[in-house]
Amino acid sequence: MIKAGIIGASGYTGGELMRLLLVHPKVKVTVATSRKLDGNDVCDTHPHLRGLTKLKFQNLEPEEVGSCCDVVFVAVPHGTAMYIVPQLMEGKAKVIDLSADYRLRQDIFESVYKLEHKDPREAVFGLPELHPEIAGATLIANPGCFPTGAVLAAAPLASAGLISSVVFDSKSGITGAGIEPSQTSHYPNMAENVQAYKLTTHRHVAEFLQELSRLDSSLTNISFTPHVVPSIRGILTTAHIFTKEKLELEYVRYVYDQMYKDKPFVRVIEGIPSLGAVRGSNFCDIGFEVDHRNNRIVVVSAIDNLVKGASGQAIQNMNIMFGIPETEGIWYAATFP
Amino acid sequence: MIKAGIIGASGYTGGELMRLLLVHPKVKVTVATSRKLDGNDVCDTHPHLRGLTKLKFQNLEPEEVGSCCDVVFVAVPHGTAMYIVPQLMEGKAKVIDLSADYRLRQDIFESVYKLEHKDPREAVFGLPELHPEIAGATLIANPGCFPTGAVLAAAPLASAGLISSVVFDSKSGITGAGIEPSQTSHYPNMAENVQAYKLTTHRHVAEFLQELSRLDSSLTNISFTPHVVPSIRGILTTAHIFTKEKLELEYVRYVYDQMYKDKPFVRVIEGIPSLGAVRGSNFCDIGFEVDHRNNRIVVVSAIDNLVKGASGQAIQNMNIMFGIPETEGIWYAATFP
Amino acid sequence: MIKAGIIGASGYTGGELMRLLLVHPKVKVTVATSRKLDGNDVCDTHPHLRGLTKLKFQNLEPEEVGSCCDVVFVAVPHGTAMYIVPQLMEGKAKVIDLSADYRLRQDIFESVYKLEHKDPREAVFGLPELHPEIAGATLIANPGCFPTGAVLAAAPLASAGLISSVVFDSKSGITGAGIEPSQTSHYPNMAENVQAYKLTTHRHVAEFLQELSRLDSSLTNISFTPHVVPSIRGILTTAHIFTKEKLELEYVRYVYDQMYKDKPFVRVIEGIPSLGAVRGSNFCDIGFEVDHRNNRIVVVSAIDNLVKGASGQAIQNMNIMFGIPETEGIWYAATFP
Amino acid sequence: MIKAGIIGASGYTGGELMRLLLVHPKVKVTVATSRKLDGNDVCDTHPHLRGLTKLKFQNLEPEEVGSCCDVVFVAVPHGTAMYIVPQLMEGKAKVIDLSADYRLRQDIFESVYKLEHKDPREAVFGLPELHPEIAGATLIANPGCFPTGAVLAAAPLASAGLISSVVFDSKSGITGAGIEPSQTSHYPNMAENVQAYKLTTHRHVAEFLQELSRLDSSLTNISFTPHVVPSIRGILTTAHIFTKEKLELEYVRYVYDQMYKDKPFVRVIEGIPSLGAVRGSNFCDIGFEVDHRNNRIVVVSAIDNLVKGASGQAIQNMNIMFGIPETEGIWYAATFP
Repeated sequence: MIKAGIIGASGYTGGELMRLLLVHPKVKVTVATSRKLDGNDVCDTHPHLRGLTKLKFQNLEPEEVGSCCDVVFVAVPHGTAMYIVPQLMEGKAKVIDLSADYRLRQDIFESVYKLEHKDPREAVFGLPELHPEIAGATLIANPGCFPTGAVLAAAPLASAGLISSVVFDSKSGITGAGIEPSQTSHYPNMAENVQAYKLTTHRHVAEFLQELSRLDSSLTNISFTPHVVPSIRGILTTAHIFTKEKLELEYVRYVYDQMYKDKPFVRVIEGIPSLGAVRGSNFCDIGFEVDHRNNRIVVVSAIDNLVKGASGQAIQNMNIMFGIPETEGIWYAATFP
Repeated sequence: MIKAGIIGASGYTGGELMRLLLVHPKVKVTVATSRKLDGNDVCDTHPHLRGLTKLKFQNLEPEEVGSCCDVVFVAVPHGTAMYIVPQLMEGKAKVIDLSADYRLRQDIFESVYKLEHKDPREAVFGLPELHPEIAGATLIANPGCFPTGAVLAAAPLASAGLISSVVFDSKSGITGAGIEPSQTSHYPNMAENVQAYKLTTHRHVAEFLQELSRLDSSLTNISFTPHVVPSIRGILTTAHIFTKEKLELEYVRYVYDQMYKDKPFVRVIEGIPSLGAVRGSNFCDIGFEVDHRNNRIVVVSAIDNLVKGASGQAIQNMNIMFGIPETEGIWYAATFP
Repeated sequence: MIKAGIIGASGYTGGELMRLLLVHPKVKVTVATSRKLDGNDVCDTHPHLRGLTKLKFQNLEPEEVGSCCDVVFVAVPHGTAMYIVPQLMEGKAKVIDLSADYRLRQDIFESVYKLEHKDPREAVFGLPELHPEIAGATLIANPGCFPTGAVLAAAPLASAGLISSVVFDSKSGITGAGIEPSQTSHYPNMAENVQAYKLTTHRHVAEFLQELSRLDSSLTNISFTPHVVPSIRGILTTAHIFTKEKLELEYVRYVYDQMYKDKPFVRVIEGIPSLGAVRGSNFCDIGFEVDHRNNRIVVVSAIDNLVKGASGQAIQNMNIMFGIPETEGIWYAATFP
Repeated sequence: MIKAGIIGASGYTGGELMRLLLVHPKVKVTVATSRKLDGNDVCDTHPHLRGLTKLKFQNLEPEEVGSCCDVVFVAVPHGTAMYIVPQLMEGKAKVIDLSADYRLRQDIFESVYKLEHKDPREAVFGLPELHPEIAGATLIANPGCFPTGAVLAAAPLASAGLISSVVFDSKSGITGAGIEPSQTSHYPNMAENVQAYKLTTHRHVAEFLQELSRLDSSLTNISFTPHVVPSIRGILTTAHIFTKEKLELEYVRYVYDQMYKDKPFVRVIEGIPSLGAVRGSNFCDIGFEVDHRNNRIVVVSAIDNLVKGASGQAIQNMNIMFGIPETEGIWYAATFP
C-alpha cells in the first residue's frame, strides 16, 4: 500500500482527496494535517467521510509528514506551498502540489502572483494527457482548474498549429472559490444568477499561455473570462477558437481523436458536453462545432473542478508516478443525474 | 384607459404581459386569447395572477380582438404571427408583435427561419434605446431576448466605429425555452449544469447583424454562442469586443454614458452586472473592463429575458407609442435577492 | 405624501422596504439609517435600487429620524429595537417594529429570548387579517415570518375550536437567515440540500402559541420544526392539524372562505400552494386536504418571507394605520415563474 | 463474476444500477433491456457511463435475460413487474424487483394500487437492516424510497414499543419522479420552490404501516405527507414521533445505537443529517432531538433516493444474497460538496 499524507486537508480539495483515496485499493491515508483544526475529527469537517475514516487532523511539520508517507499531497493556498515543499523534498516521499506555486516559471509566477518565490525549483506540470514525463517525476505541480479544461479543449488544434486566436469563456461551479463563506458564495447572491469576475485579469491565463505555447510557440492571442454559475461543481469552458484557415468538421474530429485516443479520461463526444455527465468523476468531455462564417471552431469542454480540475487529477498523477494503472481508484462514472 | 388585448396569452410572455399590465395605471386588459385553453381561467395557467383578474382565455379571431382594443400584443410562435398581424392591421389598434416575424428584412427572415413570409410589411424594430421612430409606429417588431442584451452591450462602441470583431457568449435562464417541459428544462438535467446549444447557428445572429451594422456598416465579424444556466430568468451576455485600437477605460465609460444618459432603463454601472439586480425588472445593466494585452473590451450586460427581453420592453414600446411616460407601469426595482 | 424612515436599512428587510416604498404612490422615503455604512450609497448595498433612489445611509439618532418622518420602520436585530422604539415613541411618528421585541408579553419575551426587556410597553401584533385594532395603533409589532404563514394556515380551524393538536413543518428560503454569509448560506452547503434546524426549540413557537391561543384558549398542543430549502425566498408551511372530530372537505373550505373572504392578501385556493405563485408578492396562499384515516387536515400555506413575512406586511400595516387602502403600493402579482 | 441483467434499464434506477455495477469488482453487467430504445447505445441515454460500457439496449424476453444471468434487477413501472417476475422465477437467476409489485400483501397491494395482482407470490422485503432473511431469498421486493428513509428513522423507537403516533414529513429530490419531463420537473416550476403533493394519500403509506407494525403491532397512527424540493437527489424525512412517555435524549441515543451498531450503512450522528453528506452514496444518516414539552422526538433521516432509496440498496441486497461482503461495490463516500 502507498502511504499518503495530505497537508492542508480541511478544504475542499483535501476533502476530495480523502473521498477518493480512502477507497483507493492501493492507498492508505496515514495523515491529514490542519493547523487550525488540530485534534478535530476529519469527519466533523467532511461529514460525508463518516464511517470511512477515524482520522483526526494533526498539526505536523512537513518533515514529519514526509517521513511517514510515500506520497504527500500539498493542498494549501498559493504562496504557502513554497515554504512546505522544500522540506518535503528533503525526504523520500514524492510530492504533488495542488497550489499554483510550482506551475509557472519563477519570473512569471512572481509577476502574476505578486510574490517573491522562495524555492525556484522545477516541477513537472501535472496534466497527464500532455506530460508523459510525469512518470519519472518526484514533484508535480498540479494544474489549475480552469487551465485543465481549457488547455485540453484547445490542445489538439494548437498542436496542429491551426489556431490564430482564442477566447476562453468559462463557467465554473462555486466550489472553485473554496470552503469559506463569502458574499459571492452566499446562496441569495449565487442562486438564479451568473457572476462574471476578473473579466480580463485572471491569474490562470499564465498557465494557458505556458501550456498552449509549448504546443505552438506562435500562439499568444489568448483571452479568458471566468464566470461563476449556480452549480456546486464543474467547469464548462466554451473555447471560441479562430483558425488560420477554414476547417471541416471531419478534420477537426480527426485531430481530436488522434490526440486523445489513448487517454482514458478524455472523452471526445459527438454532442455538446455538460456538467452532469462528468460530476464527481475524473473525466473531461469535449465536443465541438464549426462556424464557417467566422472561421471559428466552438469547442466545449466539461470537467468536475474538484476532480479532474484538482484532486482526481492529482491522484491520476500519483498513479502514473507509482507505476500503477492510471485509472486505479478514480475509474468511476459521474454521479448523474 | 388603453384597452389591451393579448393574442397567445397562455405562455410565459403572455403571463408576464398580464403580470405588468393588470396593475398598469393606464391600461385595462380586455382580452386574452388561447386556442387550446378556450374558456379556462387565466389564473389556472398563471397562478400568480389570482386575485388580480377574473379573465378567461377566449378563442377569438384577430379581427375581433383588434376591434375591442387600442393595442394588441401578439405572443405567438414564430411563423404564426405573420398570419395574424395582417388582419389586426386592418383595424385601428396598434400592434406589438413579440415573435420574430417582423424583425428582419423579408429575404433574411426567409433564409434564417426557413419559411416563406406571407406578409412582407415593414415594422419598427422595438428597441427603444436605439429606435426613436417607435413613437410614430403602428406595428412594432419586439426584439429577441438575446439581441436586446447583446446589442445594448455593443451599441456604443459600434456606433463610435471602434469594433473590429466581437464574440457574444450569452448565459440565459431556462424560461427562454418556454412553458412546455422538455429534456432540457427537466430539473435533473438543468440544475447544477450549464448547457451550451446551437454553438454556431442561433437564429438571433441575424438580429445582431442587422442592428449593429445599422450603427457601423463595416461591422460583420460577429460570433454568438448561447448557453442555458440554472436560472429561471435572466440573460447575462459577455461581449468580448476586440477594438481597432487600444482604448482607455475612461474613454469607454464616456462613450457608454453619452449614449445611455437619457435612457431610464439602461444603467451603466461601475462594477459587473449580475442577474439578481435586474430580476423581474425592465432594466438592462451594463459594465465593462479593458484588456490592454488583447485590445479587448469585455462588456457584460444583464437583463431579465421575460421583461426587458420580451414583455416589459413591449410595454415600454406601448408607452412610447401612446405618448405616455416611457416608464409608466414598468418602473419597478428588481426582486432582489 | 407619507414621509417614511427606515432604521437599519442595510439588511434584507430594509432593502425590501425600499423596493416597495420607493414606488409606493403615497410614500416618500426620506431617511435610511445604517451605523456601519454611514455615508455609503444605498445602491451599493442594494444594487437593484439603482436608478430609483440616490439616498445614502445615514447614522442618525432615533429622535432625528422620528422628527422628520410620519412613519418609522425599525429593521434592527432582536434586542436592539427595545432601545430605539422608546425614543421614537416620544415623537409624533407612528412606529412599525420588524424585530421580535414587542411581539410577546414581557415575561414570555424574556424567557424565550433570554434578555431583560428594557421597554415593557404594549404594541399591536401586526397580522392584519386577525388584528383590526391595527387601524388605531401607533406601535406595531410586525410578526415573525414563520408565525405569519403558520398562524394564517391554522387560524380558521382554531377559531372554530376544532383543533386538538398541530404539527407545523415549515420550509423556508435562506434569506430568512439574513444578508451575512454563513456556513448555512454557503452555496455548496445549501444547494441540492434541505437543512432542518432547531428541531424542537425555535423561538417563533411563542408567537404561534400566543396567536392561536387567542383564538382558542384550550389549544396548546403545538409543535414546530423549521427547515431551510434551496430557495432564496419563501416559506411553505405544512400544518398537520389533528381535529377533535372527523371533518368533511366542504366544511373545511367553508370555514376558510368565511374567515378570509374580505382579506385581499389571503387566497384560499383549490389546489396546493407553492412558493412560485407568491414570490415577491404580499399574498398568502392556502390550500388543504382531509385525511379521514387520521382525523388530520393537511393545510399548506405559502408566503414570501421578505414580503408577507416581513416588509410587505409592514407596509400593509402602515396603509391601515394611515387610513389608505390596505393594498396601496403592494398590490402586485408574484414574479412567476 | 456474478452476471447481472437489468430489465428496464433506460430510467434513473437503471442508470444508477449501471453506474455502480459497471465498477463493482464482483459483477459483470451482461444485459440491459429497453423496449423502446432497442439497439441504442446505453450511453446515449446515460451519458455519464461513456467509456465504462459499450452495452446496447436490447429488447429481450424475461426468460432470455434470466437464462444468461445470475441475478436480474427488474426496474420497470409498478404493475408491469408482476408480468415479468414469474417468467424470471422459472430460471435459476435470483431476482431483485425495484417496483412496488411484491412489497405488500396481495390484498393490500390491490387496494392501494387499484390493480389486480397477477402473481401472488411472496418476496422478502429488501430492507437489509431489518430483514436478515434476505440472505436466503431468491426474490427481493426492494423497498420504496420514502419507506426506506422513514422506516429506518422510526424503527428503533417502534421496536421498543415507545411510539404513540408519528407524522412523517418528507422532502424529496425530483429524480423520484423519474426521467420523463413533466410540469412538476420543469425547471421554472421546481427551482426556488417546494411542492407538496398527495398531502394525505401517498401509496407508500402502506409500506410504512407494514414495516412498522411488524415491529410494534399496536402502531397504526401514522401520517405521511411528501414534498418535492429543488434537489436532484435525496430524501430528508422529518419524523415527528410522539412517544407514550417522556424520554431522555441519552436513552433515545442508546436505543438507536443498539439497533444500528452493526449496520454499516446507517450512521447515527450527533447533529442533524442533511442531503449533501449522503449524496450519491448508500448511507442513511439519522439524528434527533427531544421536545419534552410535547413528548415529541424529532428524528431526521437522510438518504440518496436513487442509491439507498433504490439501486444501491438493491445491490446491497444482491451482495447479501450472494454471500459477498454487504459493502462490496457500494462502499463510497458521498459526493460532497
